[in-house]
Amino acid sequence: VNERVSISIVGASGYSGAELLRLMLRHPHIQIEKLFANSSAGKHLHDLYPEFRGRLSKVFEPYSIDAVSTSRVVFLALPSGEAMNLAPDLLANGKIVIDLGGDFRLRNTQDYETYYKHTHHAPDLLQRAVYGLAEWNQEKIKSASLIANPGCYPTSAILPLLPMLKEKLIEPSGITITAMSGVSGAGRKADLSLSFCEVNDSVKAYKVAEHQHIPEINQTLSDFTGEAISVSFVPHLIPITRGIYTTIHATLKPNTSRERVAEAFEKYYANAAFVRVLKNELPELRGVACTNFTDIGFRIAEKTNHLILCSAIDNLTKGAAGQAIQNFNLKFGFNETDGVN
Amino acid sequence: VNERVSISIVGASGYSGAELLRLMLRHPHIQIEKLFANSSAGKHLHDLYPEFRGRLSKVFEPYSIDAVSTSRVVFLALPSGEAMNLAPDLLANGKIVIDLGGDFRLRNTQDYETYYKHTHHAPDLLQRAVYGLAEWNQEKIKSASLIANPGCYPTSAILPLLPMLKEKLIEPSGITITAMSGVSGAGRKADLSLSFCEVNDSVKAYKVAEHQHIPEINQTLSDFTGEAISVSFVPHLIPITRGIYTTIHATLKPNTSRERVAEAFEKYYANAAFVRVLKNELPELRGVACTNFTDIGFRIAEKTNHLILCSAIDNLTKGAAGQAIQNFNLKFGFNETDGVN
Amino acid sequence: VNERVSISIVGASGYSGAELLRLMLRHPHIQIEKLFANSSAGKHLHDLYPEFRGRLSKVFEPYSIDAVSTSRVVFLALPSGEAMNLAPDLLANGKIVIDLGGDFRLRNTQDYETYYKHTHHAPDLLQRAVYGLAEWNQEKIKSASLIANPGCYPTSAILPLLPMLKEKLIEPSGITITAMSGVSGAGRKADLSLSFCEVNDSVKAYKVAEHQHIPEINQTLSDFTGEAISVSFVPHLIPITRGIYTTIHATLKPNTSRERVAEAFEKYYANAAFVRVLKNELPELRGVACTNFTDIGFRIAEKTNHLILCSAIDNLTKGAAGQAIQNFNLKFGFNETDGVN
Amino acid sequence: VNERVSISIVGASGYSGAELLRLMLRHPHIQIEKLFANSSAGKHLHDLYPEFRGRLSKVFEPYSIDAVSTSRVVFLALPSGEAMNLAPDLLANGKIVIDLGGDFRLRNTQDYETYYKHTHHAPDLLQRAVYGLAEWNQEKIKSASLIANPGCYPTSAILPLLPMLKEKLIEPSGITITAMSGVSGAGRKADLSLSFCEVNDSVKAYKVAEHQHIPEINQTLSDFTGEAISVSFVPHLIPITRGIYTTIHATLKPNTSRERVAEAFEKYYANAAFVRVLKNELPELRGVACTNFTDIGFRIAEKTNHLILCSAIDNLTKGAAGQAIQNFNLKFGFNETDGVN
Repeated sequence: VNERVSISIVGASGYSGAELLRLMLRHPHIQIEKLFANSSAGKHLHDLYPEFRGRLSKVFEPYSIDAVSTSRVVFLALPSGEAMNLAPDLLANGKIVIDLGGDFRLRNTQDYETYYKHTHHAPDLLQRAVYGLAEWNQEKIKSASLIANPGCYPTSAILPLLPMLKEKLIEPSGITITAMSGVSGAGRKADLSLSFCEVNDSVKAYKVAEHQHIPEINQTLSDFTGEAISVSFVPHLIPITRGIYTTIHATLKPNTSRERVAEAFEKYYANAAFVRVLKNELPELRGVACTNFTDIGFRIAEKTNHLILCSAIDNLTKGAAGQAIQNFNLKFGFNETDGVN
Repeated sequence: VNERVSISIVGASGYSGAELLRLMLRHPHIQIEKLFANSSAGKHLHDLYPEFRGRLSKVFEPYSIDAVSTSRVVFLALPSGEAMNLAPDLLANGKIVIDLGGDFRLRNTQDYETYYKHTHHAPDLLQRAVYGLAEWNQEKIKSASLIANPGCYPTSAILPLLPMLKEKLIEPSGITITAMSGVSGAGRKADLSLSFCEVNDSVKAYKVAEHQHIPEINQTLSDFTGEAISVSFVPHLIPITRGIYTTIHATLKPNTSRERVAEAFEKYYANAAFVRVLKNELPELRGVACTNFTDIGFRIAEKTNHLILCSAIDNLTKGAAGQAIQNFNLKFGFNETDGVN
Repeated sequence: VNERVSISIVGASGYSGAELLRLMLRHPHIQIEKLFANSSAGKHLHDLYPEFRGRLSKVFEPYSIDAVSTSRVVFLALPSGEAMNLAPDLLANGKIVIDLGGDFRLRNTQDYETYYKHTHHAPDLLQRAVYGLAEWNQEKIKSASLIANPGCYPTSAILPLLPMLKEKLIEPSGITITAMSGVSGAGRKADLSLSFCEVNDSVKAYKVAEHQHIPEINQTLSDFTGEAISVSFVPHLIPITRGIYTTIHATLKPNTSRERVAEAFEKYYANAAFVRVLKNELPELRGVACTNFTDIGFRIAEKTNHLILCSAIDNLTKGAAGQAIQNFNLKFGFNETDGVN
Repeated sequence: VNERVSISIVGASGYSGAELLRLMLRHPHIQIEKLFANSSAGKHLHDLYPEFRGRLSKVFEPYSIDAVSTSRVVFLALPSGEAMNLAPDLLANGKIVIDLGGDFRLRNTQDYETYYKHTHHAPDLLQRAVYGLAEWNQEKIKSASLIANPGCYPTSAILPLLPMLKEKLIEPSGITITAMSGVSGAGRKADLSLSFCEVNDSVKAYKVAEHQHIPEINQTLSDFTGEAISVSFVPHLIPITRGIYTTIHATLKPNTSRERVAEAFEKYYANAAFVRVLKNELPELRGVACTNFTDIGFRIAEKTNHLILCSAIDNLTKGAAGQAIQNFNLKFGFNETDGVN
């Protein structure tokens, strides 16, 4: 059958929103209904994103719960602190909500408030929300009505780490994560620090020890391993538009061979549609641009007995919109790769 | 007095050679004599570097020991493995040699051969060579005839680490270093992997656990602290022309405050002309572009008790030509900042 | 029916070859058979282009006429001067040949030899070749066995100019064309002048008055208008990977209104799947990246009575592989947008 | 003597202001007094521009006429429409004013209002202002109290055109100018259209037939040739930080040789410190980055009898701050190259 599920996007004018649209245009089972974006209400999609001219004719609308009524699924692609105000109503109206933001990822409201600097207004939904890490949480995703799509940095760090931790190949302490992100990760906005002249030819670390993805990484690694894990994480802004490259140093347990590492990845990802574990190469960001793949490579530094893990994702695809559609597919029983292949 | 020291450059057609020239044009005590570059012999400097047109009229010459005779100082800016063939003769002829390459940095020939993949042809010079880390080795530099100018990555990693290690504020084990370099660090050459289309919009880790700067970092940290230190180091190529950004995770010793870290930096760098320790900010690469500065910032991650150190340098200036001129100034008793201010 | 036409690509390791593959993976009626690339023979496609890992498993082969035997269509994506040596044999063997290079675009061998600096070895094929400007030459393309796919710059210049010239809205003399190209237009090769450090933060004009696309533009404009037209054309290399942006100044005929210009575009492109004429905006390159669209905008400069035409294409898609597939679709009667939508 | 002239900068927080400071730090006869920037008042210079840390310690102040009292020269680096409100008072107080903006470049207030979209509030100063095109207006600059520093695009277009027009080598009509600018030309501001993600990998023409530099080019070409000249000009934004590359197509007068063109350039620029006319090469933007040079190259397109002129400048240096200091030097009788060499 050729069922199409009607969806709407709230916050459709941002980069994640546009990426959802780029992918959905190819999705055989999605009917794009409404694009909500208060700040751009009245503008055409192609005014902001000329690539859609002649391919998708839509006008941004101001959001209201009534306007969304005919959609079965609502994707939220909003700045943090906004989704928690909308989700309760949407769920009460029977919508399935896939939130690309951070409002429903942390179960601990204290962590949320510390790192996101907002009070949480819908704390009761935190237990109901399912963390949409598609490769690891499929069963729960299938039955979820509120899916908290993972953050971009967490996706890039958790996917290489979990098989190593599950198989106890690395020490759970002393893990250091250094990540580089393209500028689209900061969102579409007029901000001097994101202007071409400030970013081009430069690099800067930011939010060191303060980034809101730290508790998300820790929570997820701890959840799936049963151990309390706390990582050291430093993100950087680099002059690229899309993509995250993450390099992890972890202490290898004694007598762990290269083969053992490869086997662990094989065990967990042999059938993963969107994880490619490289045998000898190290990932390059250009290999995952505009795709939903996570490329993972590794090396053993024998002198210090570290395992080095490198991963590459497109922050807008696997790190946001692509994984959201992957979750949509899992939820509705479509092919996992529909629209994201 | 207005003394000018006559110098020549071997390997002058590369990016470090051109950077030497850019700086030397402003140096009040340098007389640029000859530019040697076998592969570009016969070409004008401005054929390769249009910025010198009308400012410095020189033709590249093929190198010979005779041709260099009237220069008092010879800067070697050659691919690894070449300087060791030239330096013995130059020293025998009474020249002062400042080598921007890696041939004389490692005292251990075994390490050299492992990491540089060449046999060392002048091992007896390794004890004579002085490591030109200007901020830490001034006395030896003054009396050196063969100065091994530090590597770009080592400069960026050692300068932030040494005060912390000397003051025993961090554990000497478990130090992880993740660094990003501009493409000029790979040298000026026709190489597909350095072409715009392969590098732009991409990132890749390379030479993980194999980079020749690993033993240099380890040797230098060990030399200056008296402890055997071995770091985990991963370099990355990112789409910028110049600059290195280095982020270090180290385990802070118990009860070490932010103030204590700041004091340690103050102790060692209060009078350093080219090290700027930031009080609250994190460094940005754009702040050091085309300068000889090393900008250092830090953060304490209380949750994991890590000290995060970030440093930014221009790989061609502080990481190569600028530090070489700084060494020249120290050696000859000129102002440390002449030509590099 | 779900017919799939078997195709092979010669010169598949270049950027146009890879772009053909990227598009063909989505094409419902193409079966990718063999990838020929002498210089990369034995390597996997994903060794050169990591984005294909897990999506298309192919090994490059050395080209021979025998090896190509089972393919019905052969796409040639070779440096100039090579296709003319292969095409005669392929045509003699009944293959349909779509040449993405310049060997069969010019009917005048003298022009070919002047601008391409080769003697032409298959001059008898020049009359047989059909110029694959999809929007203007559909009927001939349908019956062609040798399709000369247009050059990237000519596509970007001819599409905006032809409606103006056909409707006699601009003077045929004094047309100046200034174009900017991404680096992929120069092909995938180890070449110092294409290295990141030489290209980034820079711009240069090249092949002024000598570019091989000049006679192609002149021939095509003259063919379709019946007037002898000769343009002034200057290409530039700018620091982007993909895309061509072309700005044309032409003298408007007296009393020609903005509306008249818009109508002329409407007349010729109202039903063109891949030409988008902007009403008020000027095109942006980001709007056509990785698409087969040509975006065209225009302005009238009343003071000098010039019509300014601006066009944007992706040089690898509409300027090469995309238009080649569009031609393939026309030839075989598939939807014009198959694989390139 | 070692005289230092006390200067202040109004609008010092913008990119032209910062470039003035970068150059002035090397100027032997400038004493930097005050930095005015209302929007950044209270911030340190190094908060905005980390490169000045440790090199120039200044705090931005709100502007007032009293605060500027001790400075002999005031550089205005303000958005258009602001300098005309400050200049009358400054001049009345005996200051020499060098305005880097466009308020005093056009003598015709109607043109000013048409292109700048402001009413002019100091029209009486327009006759008093001297156009600071250093290579062509030296005598007037020496006696000026109000210098209107040329725009970046006009500088890049006028310098190659004037010798051709003065020597009557090209037709004065039908001149088309196509220019590409780095993003710093748009100023330092939070503006979505200048954000990295919107600019990177893209190109766009803008203000076609509407740019405020059109009347400036026309007025200057007409002033220096005595003929009414009106050009067709199209500017583009490209993904570089600094620099303008300008390509001009002009109709060559009959029987004009390449040698004649070279001689005309030699006649006017043989002694120009900052104009480099290339004999055979075409300019590259990287050759003028961070310098005050204008590089000019040319080609004759015999087929259409066009002369193609290409020029490259750094928009912040020769196109703004560098030329302003060159004007300062001319005015005060210092070496023309002081501070800008």
